[in-house]
Parts: sequence; C-alpha cells; structure tokens
Amino acid sequence: MYKCSLERMSDKIKTFSTYGDAGHGGITRYSLSPEAILARNEFIKRMEAIGATIEVDDVANLYATIEGSDPDTKRIVMASHIDSVKNGGNFDGILGVISAMEALETIVDKKIPHTHPITAMVWTNEEGSLYPPAMMCSGIVCYDYLPASIKEKFRKEDMLSTKDVLTGKTTFEEALDKSGFKGDEKNRLSPEKYMYMFETHIEQGPILEDAGNDVGVVDCVLGMFNYRVKFYGQTTHAGTFPMPKRKDAFFAAAQAILYLHTEIDKLGYPELVYTTGEVDCHPCIHTCVPDYFDFCIDVRHEDPEVLAKVLAIVKSCADKDWSGCSCTVEKAWNRDTVYWDEKLVSYVKEAAEESGVSHQMIHSGAGHDAQFASYMMPTTMIFVQSKDGLSHCEPEYSSMEQCTSGATVMMNAVLKADKD
Amino acid sequence: MYKCSLERMSDKIKTFSTYGDAGHGGITRYSLSPEAILARNEFIKRMEAIGATIEVDDVANLYATIEGSDPDTKRIVMASHIDSVKNGGNFDGILGVISAMEALETIVDKKIPHTHPITAMVWTNEEGSLYPPAMMCSGIVCYDYLPASIKEKFRKEDMLSTKDVLTGKTTFEEALDKSGFKGDEKNRLSPEKYMYMFETHIEQGPILEDAGNDVGVVDCVLGMFNYRVKFYGQTTHAGTFPMPKRKDAFFAAAQAILYLHTEIDKLGYPELVYTTGEVDCHPCIHTCVPDYFDFCIDVRHEDPEVLAKVLAIVKSCADKDWSGCSCTVEKAWNRDTVYWDEKLVSYVKEAAEESGVSHQMIHSGAGHDAQFASYMMPTTMIFVQSKDGLSHCEPEYSSMEQCTSGATVMMNAVLKADKD
Repeated sequence: MYKCSLERMSDKIKTFSTYGDAGHGGITRYSLSPEAILARNEFIKRMEAIGATIEVDDVANLYATIEGSDPDTKRIVMASHIDSVKNGGNFDGILGVISAMEALETIVDKKIPHTHPITAMVWTNEEGSLYPPAMMCSGIVCYDYLPASIKEKFRKEDMLSTKDVLTGKTTFEEALDKSGFKGDEKNRLSPEKYMYMFETHIEQGPILEDAGNDVGVVDCVLGMFNYRVKFYGQTTHAGTFPMPKRKDAFFAAAQAILYLHTEIDKLGYPELVYTTGEVDCHPCIHTCVPDYFDFCIDVRHEDPEVLAKVLAIVKSCADKDWSGCSCTVEKAWNRDTVYWDEKLVSYVKEAAEESGVSHQMIHSGAGHDAQFASYMMPTTMIFVQSKDGLSHCEPEYSSMEQCTSGATVMMNAVLKADKD
Repeated sequence: MYKCSLERMSDKIKTFSTYGDAGHGGITRYSLSPEAILARNEFIKRMEAIGATIEVDDVANLYATIEGSDPDTKRIVMASHIDSVKNGGNFDGILGVISAMEALETIVDKKIPHTHPITAMVWTNEEGSLYPPAMMCSGIVCYDYLPASIKEKFRKEDMLSTKDVLTGKTTFEEALDKSGFKGDEKNRLSPEKYMYMFETHIEQGPILEDAGNDVGVVDCVLGMFNYRVKFYGQTTHAGTFPMPKRKDAFFAAAQAILYLHTEIDKLGYPELVYTTGEVDCHPCIHTCVPDYFDFCIDVRHEDPEVLAKVLAIVKSCADKDWSGCSCTVEKAWNRDTVYWDEKLVSYVKEAAEESGVSHQMIHSGAGHDAQFASYMMPTTMIFVQSKDGLSHCEPEYSSMEQCTSGATVMMNAVLKADKD
C-alpha cells in the first residue's frame, strides 16, 4: 500500500484556507469569486508542477490529468469542489480537491505505475450559495443522464441566467465570463472519456467520531423528500381579539411540529432523520395574530418504504383542524436513494483495510456532485471524520492525520480501479 | 340630543376612501405621503368651509377650531389620524377624524350653542408604517408628560432622523419638510390651551358585534407587556446528524408555545389576550437544523396582578431545558393600564343613552394617540363596532349608521363637557 504525505496534505489545507479567510477560523469562498479564483490558480499551479494537463469545460469545471501507461484508456477522475457556504469551514469540498491533488502528487512523486490517465477535478458551484441551486454544474454536465424528476431543474440556459442572491444584479453567466474560467464543452466529464469517479468528503455528521473511525466507506446517498406544510388562519389585532375566536397559524404550526415529532418517532427507525429548518410567518408583526405560517420538512432514509410511512404522517396534517386553522401539504421535491457502484465500494473498503485505516460502512445523508455523476459512470465516495459532526460552519474540523488517511484510501482505491 | 348627518358622514367616508385607494376595497396611505396630503387638504377645505381656523404644529399635527361663545376658555379637542397601514381599511383612524369634522359641521350647521372653542385634530403618523414607531407625533407632543419608561422612545431629534422602512433613504424630517405641513411648535396641543380630548375609533375587535351594540364606551387602554423568548440550539446538516443528538431551536420554540398556551389558559382569565405574532429563525435553510429561534409574546389585561402571573409563566421558560436548547426571556417593553377620565367617560355613557345608541362599556386592547394625550389632560374614547372585529386590513368595515352613531355620541359628550 502506498501512503499520502501528511506534510504535503497539511501544507495544502493551510494554503487553501487563506483563500477567502473570513478572519475567525473559516472561509467565505463563493464559486467564481476572487477568492475562489485564487484557489483555482493554486490548484492549477500545483497540478502543472507535477506535469498534469489542465482543461476547463464550458461551465468552469476544472480538470488536471496525469498520463497513464496506456493513453488510449479512459480516465479515472477524483472530484470535489472548492466553493463554500457563507462562513463555512476549511474542509467541506476543498478536502476532496486537496485529496485528489495529493493522490496525483503521490503517484507522480513515488512513480506509482498505473495504466489509466488519472484526473483531479474541481466542480464549479457545488454549494450554490451565491448562485443557486446547489450542485449546479454537475447538474448541467450530467443533465442528459439524470432522472426526469431532477433534470428539469438543471437546464443550462436557466442556470446561466440565475442571479446572485446578494444583489440580484449579476447572472451566473456574467460571473462565468468575468472569471476567465469559461472553457470548452468538449472538455466536459463524459462516460466516453472517463471510466470511474471517486469523491472524498467530510462526513458532516458525528457517526465516525462516535464510533472512533477515521474513514467512512460510503455505500449510498439517502433517498429523501421535502414537503412544505402550510397553515392558514386569520390575522387580527393582538390587543382586541378574544382568545377563543382566534385562528393563530403559528400556534397551529407549533402543534403540528409536536404531532409530527410524536408520530414519526413512534415509527422507531433510528437511522431516520427529519428536519423542519425553514419557516415563513405572515404578517410577522408583534401586534398581529399570524394568519399564515409554513415550515418545510426534509426527511431522509435509505428505505423507500420508511419514507412512504413518514410521508403518510406528514400528509395527515392536511386532514386535521389545527385550532381553527386549515393546513395544506405540498411536495417540493424528492429523490430516491442512490447506491454507489458495488465494485468501487469494495475497492475503497479493501484500500482502507490494507492501509490500516480505521473505517466503517456509512450512508451519505447529504447530497454531493458524485450522485449526479453516478448516473453517468460508476462512482463512489470516501468520508473523513468530522469533529462534532459539524459542517457548513467555521468550527468544521478533521485532523491532518484523518485527512491524509482519506487521501491514502482514495488513492489506493483508484489504483485498484486502475487495474480494471 | 343633537344628531349628526348620515348623509354627510357617508359622503366624507366615501371621499376620503379615494385618497390612497389600493384598488381592492382598502387604502395604503402612509403619513405625509402624497395620498395623505390629499386627505389633509380635504380636511382643511371642509373645515375652512364651516369657518374653522386652521393651525399646524411643528410635526404637522393639524388643528381646525371653531369659536365658542367665550374666546378666553380652553378648547375641547376631538382627534384621530388619517394615515393607514399598508393595505389598511377605510375606518381605522380616519373615522375619528371624520367624526370630529362631522361634530363641528353639525354644531355649525345647527348653530348649537357652546362656550368653549372646539377643535377637530389630525395626529401625524399614528401608524408609524413608513416611519416607526407608532404614535410618533403624539409621543413627541406629549413628551414632557409621559412616564419615563415611555418617553425615552419619543425624543424629537430621534424621531426626526427616523428613516423610512421601504427604502431607508428618506428621514421623517425630510418628509416633513417636503410635505409643506411643518408648522409652528406654538400651535401644539397643550394643557394650557386645551381642556379635554376625545377620540372616536373603530373597536378593532368583535366584542360589540357579538353583543349587538353599535358603540363602546371605553374606560381604559389595557396594560401590556412584550417579551422576546429566545431559543439557542446547534445547527447541523439535515441529512447527516442523528435525531437524538440534535438541538433544534424551532422544535424547542414549538414546545414552548404549547407550554405557554397550556399554562396561561389554566389561569382562567377570559379577558386576557396573548399573542406570539413575530418570529425569527436562523439560519432558516431547509437543509439545516435551526440553531436559533425566537418569538415575541404580547400580553394584555387590565389588572397588573394578572399580567404579573402571566409574566411569571413566560419567564419560567428560561428555567427549562427544551430538548437540549437553552432559552432566555428578554423584556421589550411594557405599559400600565391607562384609565380614561371618569367624568368624560360618564359624559360619553350619558350621551349614548340619551341618543338611543346601543352601547356597552369596553376596554381598549390597542394603543391610541389618546393614551399619550391622557397624561396631559382628561381624555376619553368612543368605539364604533367593527365587522368581524377586523382592522389593519382591507375588509375593515363599520356601517354608515354605526359611524354616524359614533359621531353623534362624541358630539353630545363634547357638548356635555362644554358645560364644565
């Protein structure tokens, strides 16, 4: 087994953490921002230094490829993203890019024999923080291969005309033109040119830490649904309207939240997660009873039958009277569980075992670019332990040792895949 | 007993409803807006037509005064406001101004003998919709007389520098200058020049309608407190964090809402009202567990001991663990119950009885300019039935007969007070 370099990994993590440094341990590095362009140039500089060929596609996805012994074979790609959420951390996304760079650097440094060309890739705009939606450019590139229910969201023309959420003034297309990273559509990831994809990512949950394992061998991305639960009451003045006649939509929603927790928890599935993270209240004035309140509910589990049971509970909200308020339940979107390629998963597992890295099987609860790529070619992921399970925030952390173990596992899995 | 004119009242209500007509039965007439200036000019035109003298003070409060038989006596004033909330109705505020105009018109028309000068007055910016706070200009004019806990909010310099909430670009002072209605401080309402104040207003609640009474004899404005209840949890990714480890601030708040309803309702005070109308959620993203949620609670009752019991319940939220989230309870503001002048209340009651108008005693749950004036001089209010108890919305409605009855009761109460 080959090992990646702790020193080189640490240096890259430290260097990239300066591009968008928000001043208190984390970064804000929106896709195609000046900070993201510094990070892209760092990627290019280091990849050119090991003799990689740089290519860019029409939506700024960036590819650095080292040759294999047989130039006529398909490439193996390792990809993730370098953009972050606002006040995000130094590991989500960028760790996958750094691990891919590290794998190539190790292969070149140690002159590890391999047949296939191997590529380190940067996806543009995974977070969608400035230009929604998330996973925008994997959505565009994998468009023809996506299920109908997903693909309609990622039409390239629509994506290009997306406006930035901060000012509403710049389109993604303008940002792309301005970045200098608008390349050629012929350079896109495709199943004709690429054989397998790997993505290393932080876990973003506490499961590996709780179990004391450094690396997760990911088997799937959980299926999920997202519904909007809406309550309609009557607004009245806070001081003048007797309590028994009120129809308070926030009170209705609060009761429904408790109902949902009670009924969903009764099902007794320990791996089920559900989240009511986004709310809207109208008129949201301290002197008015709310006449409207809604929340979204995001539910994730591997088994579609479990999701169906939870959905039945969510839908039952619409049949109830909530202290005089009515309720509607509306689908926002859903997706089926996406299973990684079994052979690639087994390569990752063997690589972890043979490298002596503590590991376990794990599901991905979050979505990743790799899941869109998986409709195009065999794909899999490697997780690295997240301290306290935190992500999308500045305290996000994985130790240099854990990060290096992740890169080592991915590299050795790629070298196994190279033998196919 | 004298009676006001149904025809003249209807004409005024119809005419004023055109100034700021929002196109679907209601109005948007922010203070000092072009629409409000049209309404002010209509007020001046009609009051000049009956020989009233027009005065304007330094914050655009507008006074139309008819002489009494003794020019050396203090004036009696009837006042309300002509500004509205966004998409408000044709009765809140403007009905009090129209009723005051109608009382003067009737007195002049019928040559009703009276000793004191009598004034119809327009308060500037009662709603505070564009330039907060509400009751801004009664706050400024009554400043020296207000309790310390209230007055600090209404320093004139602070009020003048308030920026409009729509664009944040214009100060209230600029709007005042531009309006052409900035008059002289010496014209202000004062206890040296004015003896009594009356205000007619729609009830904004369903009590009169439910009891089948057209007019309410108001005895007080309810005491109230407003506190902010804040919950602190931990944000994590919706898909990656097991349920038992979550600290969901929205779930915490929902539990607290049910706790508050249960415990407060147990107290068993039918006249108590409490409202949780305004919420804030962070980060309010569908893929994140909320790490922060707060709501305000507005509680109103005549009896300070009842308010104290409810406050103890609200404060007890801070002592509990809400599914792993902590809670703080912070005071926003409070005010004591303001009782109207007993003698003036009895004049209103007698006027209603003698005019044959169906009526009852009632509290005001909402705040009004009259409550600030009451720190300066004896003051009282008359309520007119609100259909379905609705206000601050376009369906706001009182029948022309009810509006005329309100004006009749106020006029006759003023004529009784004129004998003091």
